[in-house]
Amino acid sequence: MSIFDVMESSVQTYARSFPVTFNKAQGVWLHDQSGKRYLDFLAGAGTLNYGHNHPVLKEALIEYIQADGIAHGLDMHTTAKAAFLTALQQIILKPRNMSHVAQFTGPTGTNAVEAAMKLARKVTGRSNIVAFTNGFHGVSLGALAATGNQHHRGGAGTSMADISRLPYDGYPGAGADSLLLFETMLNDNSSGLDKPAAVLFEVVQGEGGLNASSVAWLQRLEKICRAHDILMIADDIQAGCGRTGTFFSFEPAGIKPDIITLSKSLSGMGLPFALVLMRPELDQWDPGEHNGTFRGNNHAFITARKALETFWKDDVFASEVRAKGELLTKRMQAMVDRFPQLFVKVKGRGMMQGIACRDGDIADVITTKCFERGLIIETAGPNDEVVKCLCPLIITEAELNQGLDWLEESIIETAGERLKKAS
Amino acid sequence: MSIFDVMESSVQTYARSFPVTFNKAQGVWLHDQSGKRYLDFLAGAGTLNYGHNHPVLKEALIEYIQADGIAHGLDMHTTAKAAFLTALQQIILKPRNMSHVAQFTGPTGTNAVEAAMKLARKVTGRSNIVAFTNGFHGVSLGALAATGNQHHRGGAGTSMADISRLPYDGYPGAGADSLLLFETMLNDNSSGLDKPAAVLFEVVQGEGGLNASSVAWLQRLEKICRAHDILMIADDIQAGCGRTGTFFSFEPAGIKPDIITLSKSLSGMGLPFALVLMRPELDQWDPGEHNGTFRGNNHAFITARKALETFWKDDVFASEVRAKGELLTKRMQAMVDRFPQLFVKVKGRGMMQGIACRDGDIADVITTKCFERGLIIETAGPNDEVVKCLCPLIITEAELNQGLDWLEESIIETAGERLKKAS
Amino acid sequence: MSIFDVMESSVQTYARSFPVTFNKAQGVWLHDQSGKRYLDFLAGAGTLNYGHNHPVLKEALIEYIQADGIAHGLDMHTTAKAAFLTALQQIILKPRNMSHVAQFTGPTGTNAVEAAMKLARKVTGRSNIVAFTNGFHGVSLGALAATGNQHHRGGAGTSMADISRLPYDGYPGAGADSLLLFETMLNDNSSGLDKPAAVLFEVVQGEGGLNASSVAWLQRLEKICRAHDILMIADDIQAGCGRTGTFFSFEPAGIKPDIITLSKSLSGMGLPFALVLMRPELDQWDPGEHNGTFRGNNHAFITARKALETFWKDDVFASEVRAKGELLTKRMQAMVDRFPQLFVKVKGRGMMQGIACRDGDIADVITTKCFERGLIIETAGPNDEVVKCLCPLIITEAELNQGLDWLEESIIETAGERLKKAS
Amino acid sequence: MSIFDVMESSVQTYARSFPVTFNKAQGVWLHDQSGKRYLDFLAGAGTLNYGHNHPVLKEALIEYIQADGIAHGLDMHTTAKAAFLTALQQIILKPRNMSHVAQFTGPTGTNAVEAAMKLARKVTGRSNIVAFTNGFHGVSLGALAATGNQHHRGGAGTSMADISRLPYDGYPGAGADSLLLFETMLNDNSSGLDKPAAVLFEVVQGEGGLNASSVAWLQRLEKICRAHDILMIADDIQAGCGRTGTFFSFEPAGIKPDIITLSKSLSGMGLPFALVLMRPELDQWDPGEHNGTFRGNNHAFITARKALETFWKDDVFASEVRAKGELLTKRMQAMVDRFPQLFVKVKGRGMMQGIACRDGDIADVITTKCFERGLIIETAGPNDEVVKCLCPLIITEAELNQGLDWLEESIIETAGERLKKAS
Repeated sequence: MSIFDVMESSVQTYARSFPVTFNKAQGVWLHDQSGKRYLDFLAGAGTLNYGHNHPVLKEALIEYIQADGIAHGLDMHTTAKAAFLTALQQIILKPRNMSHVAQFTGPTGTNAVEAAMKLARKVTGRSNIVAFTNGFHGVSLGALAATGNQHHRGGAGTSMADISRLPYDGYPGAGADSLLLFETMLNDNSSGLDKPAAVLFEVVQGEGGLNASSVAWLQRLEKICRAHDILMIADDIQAGCGRTGTFFSFEPAGIKPDIITLSKSLSGMGLPFALVLMRPELDQWDPGEHNGTFRGNNHAFITARKALETFWKDDVFASEVRAKGELLTKRMQAMVDRFPQLFVKVKGRGMMQGIACRDGDIADVITTKCFERGLIIETAGPNDEVVKCLCPLIITEAELNQGLDWLEESIIETAGERLKKAS
Repeated sequence: MSIFDVMESSVQTYARSFPVTFNKAQGVWLHDQSGKRYLDFLAGAGTLNYGHNHPVLKEALIEYIQADGIAHGLDMHTTAKAAFLTALQQIILKPRNMSHVAQFTGPTGTNAVEAAMKLARKVTGRSNIVAFTNGFHGVSLGALAATGNQHHRGGAGTSMADISRLPYDGYPGAGADSLLLFETMLNDNSSGLDKPAAVLFEVVQGEGGLNASSVAWLQRLEKICRAHDILMIADDIQAGCGRTGTFFSFEPAGIKPDIITLSKSLSGMGLPFALVLMRPELDQWDPGEHNGTFRGNNHAFITARKALETFWKDDVFASEVRAKGELLTKRMQAMVDRFPQLFVKVKGRGMMQGIACRDGDIADVITTKCFERGLIIETAGPNDEVVKCLCPLIITEAELNQGLDWLEESIIETAGERLKKAS
Repeated sequence: MSIFDVMESSVQTYARSFPVTFNKAQGVWLHDQSGKRYLDFLAGAGTLNYGHNHPVLKEALIEYIQADGIAHGLDMHTTAKAAFLTALQQIILKPRNMSHVAQFTGPTGTNAVEAAMKLARKVTGRSNIVAFTNGFHGVSLGALAATGNQHHRGGAGTSMADISRLPYDGYPGAGADSLLLFETMLNDNSSGLDKPAAVLFEVVQGEGGLNASSVAWLQRLEKICRAHDILMIADDIQAGCGRTGTFFSFEPAGIKPDIITLSKSLSGMGLPFALVLMRPELDQWDPGEHNGTFRGNNHAFITARKALETFWKDDVFASEVRAKGELLTKRMQAMVDRFPQLFVKVKGRGMMQGIACRDGDIADVITTKCFERGLIIETAGPNDEVVKCLCPLIITEAELNQGLDWLEESIIETAGERLKKAS
Repeated sequence: MSIFDVMESSVQTYARSFPVTFNKAQGVWLHDQSGKRYLDFLAGAGTLNYGHNHPVLKEALIEYIQADGIAHGLDMHTTAKAAFLTALQQIILKPRNMSHVAQFTGPTGTNAVEAAMKLARKVTGRSNIVAFTNGFHGVSLGALAATGNQHHRGGAGTSMADISRLPYDGYPGAGADSLLLFETMLNDNSSGLDKPAAVLFEVVQGEGGLNASSVAWLQRLEKICRAHDILMIADDIQAGCGRTGTFFSFEPAGIKPDIITLSKSLSGMGLPFALVLMRPELDQWDPGEHNGTFRGNNHAFITARKALETFWKDDVFASEVRAKGELLTKRMQAMVDRFPQLFVKVKGRGMMQGIACRDGDIADVITTKCFERGLIIETAGPNDEVVKCLCPLIITEAELNQGLDWLEESIIETAGERLKKAS
């Protein structure tokens, strides 16, 4: 029995899909103890947009540690924080005409979501928040109330109040216009929808199955929120930091969310880090009202700043991401077209796309075969039925094609086996 | 205006007490941009038990990063994790006759508490959890329900259910035996106390004002819990990792909590990290039921393991901590005895002690004067009335005396000024 | 100032619409202190289906009181209760092939709903209950959670959990098939809809605006509930007891709700009374688990039994109600057709119909004019925009026409005034 | 099988203790179908203070019904309501210097409590309400949260929030001064007690075991509430209407509760009725904000007014009640003194007293033996261990002695049997 069998809780999950022990990683490649390497199409569930141990970030971090840079400083002022805030302001916010201020919460996405929800409730004096079908926002109790997944909700052990659930863009059963229900309920004094403090939404739902909302839906959502004085909280934890081809996933829609949560790839190197951006007039926090020991991870300030400076000073990186996203669409669509018996459609946007299989078993067989080939790829969706490509954004076209080749081989093999079984 | 004024949310708090910008730190010393150094009696609110950038930990971390060690691996198996688990088992659990298994939650204390609460509710099928007056367990919604602090509770913006509040050891108004109320209510079918899944307690309440529970109280609490089949969750996030003179704060009482939360100083170097230990039979998690992107911070695995190996292989370090704790008691008691007009008493245990002032203003004046002298020290308690010494455990006797000298000078000055004002 | 001005809380509402003091009532007529009489098209908001002081019920009640019949007996066995139960069984349940058992809750509709919700949660072990847009189920906290009306919800002062709101039949924004959303969410593991214990529904929503569900919708709802093992709670408090032309409003749909709540007209004479019917296998109550001082109102047992015996031994009464309902439809439709500038459509079913006005002001003007003519009639709907006819079912055709004539005159006058204003 | 076996839910409870079918009642006597009569020391759990079918009330009611008095009028003005309000004002409030206004809620005690809680929350803008150990306030969800009884709480099926539970006067484990804990927590910023909107208390806890609070405790409670701007809600549903020897149970303490709930004996004849009294400045209800079909039971207006006029125009009746209460104390104390092996002590106050047995079995045996003798008497307390005398207040001394004789005989018999068993 390995130490993991003896000592680690049954709560562990990814180790079940990839039952090897990894010992190092560089760029898009993970290495296991035996020396075998794996192409990483999971990327820390979207946390490693710039790959593993990116040389620039790594060098900056080592230099900082060597110089006895502050590792832990609560929320005190540090030069590392100042430099990050300046980069955030100059490179990200100003060019996008955003005047948001920054709150460093505990370094997890769920903590950022908790802070955003609290703030929206405090500012508006309302308790209710609208969340959407298939939304995933974290599993601490406040965020869990907004998360749709039953597997996670089932763990709460207590009632979760003050969330109203509405159908996301394109949700089956919601009619052609899924926001008409929201709008009707807002205008109806006995709809049962308590006027919400905010809507909490993902522009592309990652865990929920790579559901991408349309520009029209987002713009309509904004219009409704403005008309009813409801705040918009964009949870950009997975879809943000360039994943969909722009720094914020909502940029193409031209909307201006009041509150934005970021985490995952924000630190650039996979270090725990989370950020809430809010319009300055919403910054009504009392000092320390939402606190936490690790708010303001100084190591992450270093790598996060370096990532902004390296990748976001101009549009070069983003346009490459969009180009790779198109390649992804093209090749995935070809696979869907070729195997209609296995697949429903391509889902998602940019470098956050996947193939919806007819059921979760198909997805499971395919990803297992991928792993045998040296490709780490996972599933998403309510029944784990979407084979999800979340590879590092810095992947080369050759590496991307390599991974997609392995995926294609695994699909062909799966299709063949199923044909055999059926006959 | 500094970048902090422009860009950082009003939620920031410690930067208000210590309005300088720090740029590096080593051992017990923090340095600001201008080159001034400060003795750190705050230590990341108990996160830096081994000081800043401890050379052994720092070296191990740099080496790991240089070798492209995995920074982010979700909850996959890594060699870094295996080594940490082995150290945890061999150095901490086995010698203490503990067979607990380990869950790495999102790397914040509050997330560990959320997981512990969920688990207790799941395993028992009960919703209610008992928490104590002045308890502090975090500010995400599930943990916040258990936290007593009104400043933090006020931020919830929604109802918090399924927590029953009971008086902590020695709580005024609870009578000589503060557990008699708990026991009576458990035995009373119409007390209104829904049978709890668990009690969630700190052995020494840090934020709540350095209230230390007695061995007798803890043993009695365990007896009651066993008699009623109620789980014990020891929140050892601040008091654990040696702060009180033993690795776990509850060791002197000889009790065996079912679930233990650790964080803060666990990583050794201030990196975000959190751990839930649970008796193996309680490990009834489904895979991924409580998840999070940064569970299993690999950099922290490295430094945490190194810290265990460096400080906990024998009792040398712990006995030094106890000795320094006694020095602390002695000198603080002398100050209390000398200035009864300012002080009520010494509170806390081990290297987690403080002086309860007659009011929060006194504490504020003293800590401000300390900062002018180069000593970073903060307050705790319901009215911020306790001057709290949380210095690194690795502090030398000379440095400890240096800090206490500055504290004493600040006290004398404060006493003098108040005398002048009064006359 | 009247005693009401001095002594009665501002919570009073109907007295504002009908500012006179009534002193007696017989059949469909209310009399005020000055001797003026009013035709009652409100009928205790559906509580007086058999009119005021029906001679048969009145006589039975007087006789019972004179003989020192038990007025208050908690839930002890009394001959009055036995006789009512026998009548309920023989006259109502057996002929409809129903084996439900009876629980007498506190004598209010909301208390019956609270009991039904508790029971569904207890039996299934699930907390969530689905309620519908525009549903009204009472204002005690459990029932209020299910009620859609914001005016009432706003009074809660605390979070209300464990209700999921779904669109009712024909709800705008819900698409052509409003149950498709429910079905989709039930089949979707990350929809955010926690599997419900029950659906709680009205066949015709009274307070919500006389929205009548179709037979097809009810049958589809039953099918979904059976497929997913979800209980059906029919709240028949307003629509039951013959109001729609059958004793239970759901009879035409042929569905078999698991739990049924009755109140309002059940006692026959307007006495407080409430009843929960449940399939025998669901009767998993512990003794006294849901109790209340006035459960089992013995005066109401007398009048309720007499009402069943008088009106429900055959189909004569019910068929008359249906005939009067058709007259109502015909005349109301004519009014809608004649004044499209004022009205949207006729809503409701049987003797529970009304005219949806273009806005609440129109409805208010019309009902005020009706009152001047001696007709008591009220409004319903989210904006009080539906002029609602809830006259006693025992009304004669002549009286019904008299009331509708007054309504028509008031409408014509209103139309005329608005024409004048517009010009 | 009787119709009750076939048709009535297992929720029934009193019928289990008294398994006969009653058919009439007069004064203090209940009669069963076979002609046997029973002395009623239960009195509708305190609902029949003036006995069954009191001739004066009965006559007034019959007369009203015969004259076609309004039975059901929603909350419209009626002459019956006006007369009741006048009597309430003139006979009860004015002489006690109270200017409270009246709200007629749904005619159950629990509904009055729900209204009182809502109002306190609305007026203060706070959610939390303090309730006490062993308090009983009803079982609809809002009131149930405040009720201590586990049997009832267990039926909720959902989380109940925003109630803080504190020890009642004399509660074991609360120390000599049970309000010190409350006061300490109010003054402690991290006690975890969210500042409450109100305290909800009974002066004598009926269902909770006849616990009587002292005058000093009530006065201290008022002082604390005034100092902290917390509303006082006196739940006088069981202890009010003369039960303890004054109309309101709190009169001897001289306190002035802000909100008072009344029900049970208020109608005088056992008819469903409930009332909330509130200081006029607290009457911030919007029209219809808390509503209900049967608010304002006109039959009850008649009997309630008549009861006030008959019994409360002077102190004669109340002083008789106090005298009978003293007789009760004397005789019960004698029984306790004689059988220390069975009994702990006499509990309660006025005509709301009982004998606390050493356990619930003793109480059960005694009350069963009483029933065999023709005495209906029940138990209260967390373990049903208190034999509770709640006989009608109009009982004669002879009848009271008759009942106590039967009780004494039953006790002697029980003591004898236990002696035999033990030997």
